[in-house]
Amino acid sequence: MTDLLRTRPVATPAMLALFDDAATIAHALAFETALARAEAAEGLIDGASAEAIARACETIAIDPAALADDAALAGTLAIPLVARLRAAVGGDAAALVHRGATSQDLADTIMAMQLRRAAASLAGDLARIDAGLTALAERHAAMPAIGRTLLQDALPIGFGLRIAHWRAGIVEPAARVEREVGAHARLQFGGAAGTRAGLDGRGAAVAARMAALLDLAPAEPWHARRGGVAGIAGAVAILVGALAKMARDVSLLAQNAVGEAREPVVAGRGGSSAMAHKRNPTGCQVALSAAARAPGLAASVIGGMAQEEERGLGGWQAEGPVLADLFLLAGGSAAAMAIVAEGLEVDEAAIARNLDAAGVGDDIGESAALTAALLAVHMGKD
Amino acid sequence: MTDLLRTRPVATPAMLALFDDAATIAHALAFETALARAEAAEGLIDGASAEAIARACETIAIDPAALADDAALAGTLAIPLVARLRAAVGGDAAALVHRGATSQDLADTIMAMQLRRAAASLAGDLARIDAGLTALAERHAAMPAIGRTLLQDALPIGFGLRIAHWRAGIVEPAARVEREVGAHARLQFGGAAGTRAGLDGRGAAVAARMAALLDLAPAEPWHARRGGVAGIAGAVAILVGALAKMARDVSLLAQNAVGEAREPVVAGRGGSSAMAHKRNPTGCQVALSAAARAPGLAASVIGGMAQEEERGLGGWQAEGPVLADLFLLAGGSAAAMAIVAEGLEVDEAAIARNLDAAGVGDDIGESAALTAALLAVHMGKD
Amino acid sequence: MTDLLRTRPVATPAMLALFDDAATIAHALAFETALARAEAAEGLIDGASAEAIARACETIAIDPAALADDAALAGTLAIPLVARLRAAVGGDAAALVHRGATSQDLADTIMAMQLRRAAASLAGDLARIDAGLTALAERHAAMPAIGRTLLQDALPIGFGLRIAHWRAGIVEPAARVEREVGAHARLQFGGAAGTRAGLDGRGAAVAARMAALLDLAPAEPWHARRGGVAGIAGAVAILVGALAKMARDVSLLAQNAVGEAREPVVAGRGGSSAMAHKRNPTGCQVALSAAARAPGLAASVIGGMAQEEERGLGGWQAEGPVLADLFLLAGGSAAAMAIVAEGLEVDEAAIARNLDAAGVGDDIGESAALTAALLAVHMGKD
Amino acid sequence: MTDLLRTRPVATPAMLALFDDAATIAHALAFETALARAEAAEGLIDGASAEAIARACETIAIDPAALADDAALAGTLAIPLVARLRAAVGGDAAALVHRGATSQDLADTIMAMQLRRAAASLAGDLARIDAGLTALAERHAAMPAIGRTLLQDALPIGFGLRIAHWRAGIVEPAARVEREVGAHARLQFGGAAGTRAGLDGRGAAVAARMAALLDLAPAEPWHARRGGVAGIAGAVAILVGALAKMARDVSLLAQNAVGEAREPVVAGRGGSSAMAHKRNPTGCQVALSAAARAPGLAASVIGGMAQEEERGLGGWQAEGPVLADLFLLAGGSAAAMAIVAEGLEVDEAAIARNLDAAGVGDDIGESAALTAALLAVHMGKD
Repeated sequence: MTDLLRTRPVATPAMLALFDDAATIAHALAFETALARAEAAEGLIDGASAEAIARACETIAIDPAALADDAALAGTLAIPLVARLRAAVGGDAAALVHRGATSQDLADTIMAMQLRRAAASLAGDLARIDAGLTALAERHAAMPAIGRTLLQDALPIGFGLRIAHWRAGIVEPAARVEREVGAHARLQFGGAAGTRAGLDGRGAAVAARMAALLDLAPAEPWHARRGGVAGIAGAVAILVGALAKMARDVSLLAQNAVGEAREPVVAGRGGSSAMAHKRNPTGCQVALSAAARAPGLAASVIGGMAQEEERGLGGWQAEGPVLADLFLLAGGSAAAMAIVAEGLEVDEAAIARNLDAAGVGDDIGESAALTAALLAVHMGKD
Repeated sequence: MTDLLRTRPVATPAMLALFDDAATIAHALAFETALARAEAAEGLIDGASAEAIARACETIAIDPAALADDAALAGTLAIPLVARLRAAVGGDAAALVHRGATSQDLADTIMAMQLRRAAASLAGDLARIDAGLTALAERHAAMPAIGRTLLQDALPIGFGLRIAHWRAGIVEPAARVEREVGAHARLQFGGAAGTRAGLDGRGAAVAARMAALLDLAPAEPWHARRGGVAGIAGAVAILVGALAKMARDVSLLAQNAVGEAREPVVAGRGGSSAMAHKRNPTGCQVALSAAARAPGLAASVIGGMAQEEERGLGGWQAEGPVLADLFLLAGGSAAAMAIVAEGLEVDEAAIARNLDAAGVGDDIGESAALTAALLAVHMGKD
Repeated sequence: MTDLLRTRPVATPAMLALFDDAATIAHALAFETALARAEAAEGLIDGASAEAIARACETIAIDPAALADDAALAGTLAIPLVARLRAAVGGDAAALVHRGATSQDLADTIMAMQLRRAAASLAGDLARIDAGLTALAERHAAMPAIGRTLLQDALPIGFGLRIAHWRAGIVEPAARVEREVGAHARLQFGGAAGTRAGLDGRGAAVAARMAALLDLAPAEPWHARRGGVAGIAGAVAILVGALAKMARDVSLLAQNAVGEAREPVVAGRGGSSAMAHKRNPTGCQVALSAAARAPGLAASVIGGMAQEEERGLGGWQAEGPVLADLFLLAGGSAAAMAIVAEGLEVDEAAIARNLDAAGVGDDIGESAALTAALLAVHMGKD
Repeated sequence: MTDLLRTRPVATPAMLALFDDAATIAHALAFETALARAEAAEGLIDGASAEAIARACETIAIDPAALADDAALAGTLAIPLVARLRAAVGGDAAALVHRGATSQDLADTIMAMQLRRAAASLAGDLARIDAGLTALAERHAAMPAIGRTLLQDALPIGFGLRIAHWRAGIVEPAARVEREVGAHARLQFGGAAGTRAGLDGRGAAVAARMAALLDLAPAEPWHARRGGVAGIAGAVAILVGALAKMARDVSLLAQNAVGEAREPVVAGRGGSSAMAHKRNPTGCQVALSAAARAPGLAASVIGGMAQEEERGLGGWQAEGPVLADLFLLAGGSAAAMAIVAEGLEVDEAAIARNLDAAGVGDDIGESAALTAALLAVHMGKD
């Protein structure tokens, strides 16, 4: 059972792979391996058992569909996963699997690992957008064009200034995503009630070792403290909005009556099933459809923050799929707009014609200096 | 590549199947078959060609992953699907495939077919909830219990009255879903600009025949008139909220310190990976996590209504996946709460003890009559 | 302390007045009067006391600011309002004020009264839109214009068909608002725990009388059954979206490079503080800004449905202001678009020029028949 | 016309005052004063005119209701405000008012000034919460209590750990609000098309002077680059969610059957209009109702980011009222929870009794160390 016709219109294969069943299972097993090794290093379990667990994690074959059925029944992934792993480990070591951990430790850590990888993947396409738009903005910094406000012709701008705004508008939110993911995609390890009980007082040390092994930031348990996850969700949705701003403008500029810019020709893209002559702004379509969906997703995560007591009912269980959707949308939007940024076709004659028609002269004010200032802010600098 | 660990915690296999690639492709081919036959019946194409198309639709084997890749590139499902179908049809008939239709005709009609089937599937579990809660409400109509307001003990109620409210709260939104889907999951057939051009004035007749063949309501094209889709989205989200109301109450009643009701024991459900003694309200978890997600999804669809001109850019393309998600959430929530409704364990001793502790007597006022009145409203009656 | 600069950019004075402190207090006193008279009619209190209460409700002068302070402190309007009213009534009748009612009975009934009046007010501007667009659609039904899809020139349409779609897109959601308000803006009367206790079994009869006196539909208490309120919220947001669809199109048509239609000139409207030559689509601005806000408001109400037990904590208290905001947005949007519908300037020469430039002929297919079919659906017919 | 009964249940008078008409007008006049003085300092207008403008800004009396009417008609505040100010200035200086500025420069700068003040006001109540919860967490750090997960008794925790989580959950989002407001509540000054045209190349210098005079960060124009505003909106909504987490827990702990903690007694607060014996968690009600509304508001702002070209139509016009609402909700929630944090009544006997009933011993694991670690993160440290 696949649902690619539903996901692929926006999501890229690369981003889908980061959140698919194989990735989830791999991260789950990495969690159990790291837990066992960290506990062995702290003397909580013996080293041979830890290595037996680690080996089983490497060799175990898990059927995702059956696991998903069992997890849906149980209400949590950890129970059927740990049962399978214990069976694979066998012997006395089996009982040492998952020691001191709770279901949400596993679920949240998997999510954190996925979010880090997703943010890194996203950064690649954002860098392409940055480079593409920077070049375009510089090239057209001094070209007078009609500026439009409230969808009406206003006064002249430098055409490159508009592009520099797109870029700055994306670079700033990209930095927010990086900051939020960096700060909040953290290890989760607290045990049943978040106290790290049953670990002979070595819980913090185990957590520190796990974080190092999994390349995550260490943290006090955050089972019911979800502001960080909400921060990531909000940041990603804002980035999607920023990409859509560029898409909105490109699609307006590409209107036949305007014609100042168009998406590049990509073989197989932008055709019409009914009109052979038509060239649709398909990259913009992807970015705009992503932006129609992202804000509601972010609101879901923010709205679910009031989670009950030590670990809540329903709130955090809703977050994982929503965060995945947000990154799928952001990744797809960035990939689509990277193509547009790298190949935008600018029609200087149309720009000149439209400016002339507006009859407001060609004084672009401080456009060039503003363009330079906007370009001086670099990706990843917050 | 599967993502069942992400979808299955809430979604049922049955509902997932209604929106998977196989179903989408089957509906797409049903659309093309109906179109060809309707056009043949109206003399727009010859009958032999129509049957050649219909046969190809029956026998064609389409690889969903490759189709999804091509659709993502094209920006629309119709182009690669029609190309494959034309190749399968061959000969002169190939050119008659998809005649007079546009991409969005296909996409919206597929969605309409899926929504009808999803609503029907949902209705089954809702009927189970109706029956289960009706029986419970009748059984406990006269049992005094402490009513609680603002999470504080208030005055006595009949325990069955609370349950009758759950039921009425679900039955009313279920009727709204039925009404909205009945009215708005309609055939889409308008052609490139929504004028049914190129059909020798037989467009309306073709549409009527297609609607009959596909068991959909006929309609004027609604490419950029999305209030109906938004109405469905809102209705489904409201139903999810109603199911969550029941789940909220059950989870509160199941608190150890309250103990008035618990989810039934289901083998393999509700355990804890860390605490063997624990019994979690897993059905409620499903319903509450669905309710955390549905409102934002509905808002996306409502927020995307201002679609440009004859067929918009990004707005309608965002709707299909969101509607699917809404039904996946609603279906999963209803399935989970059906089990709870059918097997809720009511602890009369705990109810009596809590009422006694409140010290407010046992006058349940008109609870019994209100319970009867609430139960008198029947499913599907709006 | 006023906040008109914040509310008036969208809200009309008429709609603001329906939700202001004076209206709220008037409805509250109407509730208490109806309650007293209904209870007197059912023999629960004596007629003289009922009339004393009714007289006090007519003559009492309440300072809204002080009442609001006290209500904010108490956490409910009913406590300080009833205290004031009892003081005004005096004597033995004072204790009979508010008998058998609870805070939420008062709050929800006030809201229901406001929603009914707001829906009626809204209907006036919607009728103007209906009439204006109907005339425009009929006038331009046969005029060929370029249809645009995905923001690109596509194939010809009848210009009136586009307008008929705007109208149908508004008329359908208007009917939904009417239906939801009609069904769900109901009397609330259940008492402390929703059982109508303490009324000698006459609660249902009291409720029936109150509903008649207040011109509201009677209902079983719906304190924690909020699907109806959510239905109203969703319906209003959808209507706002439909108005924005028209606004989106008008603003696109009004672009200088397109020039097919413009908002009518309204003295004092649409100017620029920096550019005297500019004419902004200010009505569209109102409708589009309303549509940016409404979906999130609807989501709030839907998302708050899982209210605890007999009367919840926080959920229903959030609804009143949000419903008011939704009607303020809808009312402002409808008022703005009524002006546009009544005075839209259509530039036939520009339409012809743009069609000619597209080079796709002038076959408008079945546009005229579709226009007629869309116009045949009448306001208020669901 | 006041609407205090609608706003005051959550909003505090202090926060309402920051966004009321008087504040808006004062900020508008501060903008025009700063603009005139900055332009005089840069030699763009003469000093006498600048002082005439400044004097008029000090002495002008503006009727908010009439101004609001005119602004609603015009579609922008700047036009009627500048007209009034020019009339007050008189003479040749009149024409120099608002030189080089556009409507959105004024609107966005007013908003920035309000957001800064609102954030500062909010910080006061957040500091009270910080102090109150820190003291509570320290006092109860070693007290064993039953931890609850999925609303079921789980294993013991230190009671102070739960409180330390509330605090950390609020302190982190508070830092995000501070950071976002610090970075993004900036001067807006770009002129009609955002190019600072017509200022003899002194636009950047004028902007720098204005920022200093208004105590705002300088910035390149951000008319259509709204990620910063969206960042503020998201941050405030997350803070509201964090406050609601505390409220959720307090309301659960205050249930009669649990009884571990209660809101402090506040004269006039928490009563019932129907039940004299009842004590409602009214502070929690405020926080929870705020949290029901904030996520949808944040989604509105994020969803409006794709604003057209140099200055959009509808998107940014929607932001100001929504941002105001967000701060009104956050301020009210923080004020309510500050009272709770400072006066929370903890019932140690009930805590011991509930722990005992759970029968899971009293091992609180590393609760004390975790409490200390969570308390070591200080307010305002990000």
